[in-house]
Amino acid sequence: MTSVPDLAQAREILAAQPFSDLLGARLVSFGAGEATLELPIRARLHQQHGFVHGGVLSYAADNALTFAAGTVGVGRPLTAGFAIDYLRPATGEILRARAAVIRAGRTRVVCRCDVATIDGDGVETLCAVAQGTVSFALPPDAGAPPVAGGW
Amino acid sequence: MTSVPDLAQAREILAAQPFSDLLGARLVSFGAGEATLELPIRARLHQQHGFVHGGVLSYAADNALTFAAGTVGVGRPLTAGFAIDYLRPATGEILRARAAVIRAGRTRVVCRCDVATIDGDGVETLCAVAQGTVSFALPPDAGAPPVAGGW
Amino acid sequence: MTSVPDLAQAREILAAQPFSDLLGARLVSFGAGEATLELPIRARLHQQHGFVHGGVLSYAADNALTFAAGTVGVGRPLTAGFAIDYLRPATGEILRARAAVIRAGRTRVVCRCDVATIDGDGVETLCAVAQGTVSFALPPDAGAPPVAGGW
Amino acid sequence: MTSVPDLAQAREILAAQPFSDLLGARLVSFGAGEATLELPIRARLHQQHGFVHGGVLSYAADNALTFAAGTVGVGRPLTAGFAIDYLRPATGEILRARAAVIRAGRTRVVCRCDVATIDGDGVETLCAVAQGTVSFALPPDAGAPPVAGGW
Repeated sequence: MTSVPDLAQAREILAAQPFSDLLGARLVSFGAGEATLELPIRARLHQQHGFVHGGVLSYAADNALTFAAGTVGVGRPLTAGFAIDYLRPATGEILRARAAVIRAGRTRVVCRCDVATIDGDGVETLCAVAQGTVSFALPPDAGAPPVAGGW
Repeated sequence: MTSVPDLAQAREILAAQPFSDLLGARLVSFGAGEATLELPIRARLHQQHGFVHGGVLSYAADNALTFAAGTVGVGRPLTAGFAIDYLRPATGEILRARAAVIRAGRTRVVCRCDVATIDGDGVETLCAVAQGTVSFALPPDAGAPPVAGGW
Repeated sequence: MTSVPDLAQAREILAAQPFSDLLGARLVSFGAGEATLELPIRARLHQQHGFVHGGVLSYAADNALTFAAGTVGVGRPLTAGFAIDYLRPATGEILRARAAVIRAGRTRVVCRCDVATIDGDGVETLCAVAQGTVSFALPPDAGAPPVAGGW
Repeated sequence: MTSVPDLAQAREILAAQPFSDLLGARLVSFGAGEATLELPIRARLHQQHGFVHGGVLSYAADNALTFAAGTVGVGRPLTAGFAIDYLRPATGEILRARAAVIRAGRTRVVCRCDVATIDGDGVETLCAVAQGTVSFALPPDAGAPPVAGGW
């Protein structure tokens, strides 16, 4: 693939991730150094006290970081690592992870991500912040055909 | 609650987490500063190239860090934040996250976690390393009855 | 101490840190959730290729995070931990670390920090990003009199 | 350069870092995936309460991570980023940062680092833990002659 995917192609890539499908994630924006993932907050995403499990927030940050980097690099982005700090218990209607590229270097892309919940009135509350590095993998492994967008 | 849960109680806590149940996580050990979580690697945990989604690894690290801290503190452990580095694509039969307390301070516990895959022959391959901080929350929020073990 | 220090008091605190004095750090702003540290980039801060040593950037992030938290909390702030990503080799006249509080919780404060270099024409180039957690220590340890501002 | 430096060459590289010289750092071991840095704890490395400044610990972690990676890679190692958690105030005679390679990949090396203080009786106390990623830079930038060992 010689170019960055468009939103439709990026959505195909997300749809091709069984885990993202399991969690009900959707890509609401993708392009120009940014990507936003949303998940309707259902009970199956909770921990034992009715809040969204921290692992859902870290999934959302991990994937949003990857997709944000994917708007500026060519090839398959792969989150190499990230740090996340949880700010408050997460509760609401929707979980939104918005990531943005801070610096696109030759070999790696550094991004930041804000994870927030949105309540029934559309009010957004920040629940975690993350920053991470995304690298670009070599062509797909043998036996794994490229998904839409070359990722 | 005045004491640390035992393995059976800790398993009840995990079972009370809908997200952990969704992912098929189980607690294989818990005590003396350590906790080990395992997840059978099923297709629904994959990303688009057949490897375990990074978000599953970060979930496993997040939860293992929390449970490890729970072996030494009294009250409800909550992962405050963590950093994770992915080492190689994760593939195999089982995902295992083994976390250990490095230092239990008065207000927070620092833990490290190794995340590995286990193949059909029982061979373990490290796929991510993490370190994080766990804090202990005040008594349960109003309206949220304590789960077994007080967490 | 019952209130947050003002800029003059915060500068006294910085001046009381021998390591900050060794590095030539100065506090250029402090208040309302933000703090900015600057260091003139001298040869003694370099690594072996003429760029600012990564350890100077991490020092600047660590200290800026602490001071930013100190604008919103009462007591002695102490950086509990942080993650930093280096974006490009750092070179220029001045190193500037600008930190801001993202969320001030009851027991800990999460901040982000941008570290940049400023060249002779005043052009700013981002060289590292960080995020970290600051906690507030109990009253000064026995034998250690409080410094100005109670820190 | 076609091979990894030996201890003597690695010490030359450290000696060529003005900042490391300013802090009094010395390389006590280097090889086989590990590197250990030590700094005599002098008053000039303190913060305002007589403990070692967190920025010294982060410097030590950053540099130890870089040198540990340098034992397994060819070319110039550069710490891309790291996370550090401070465990307790650092005080003692010597600060020791021991880093070890966890995984040496094709493009990046992940390492862990323990930072400890050693008191007058030789007792070691862990004061921080870190983990980070080191990448390998292209040949030296134009105008920057290689230092001993090609770094």
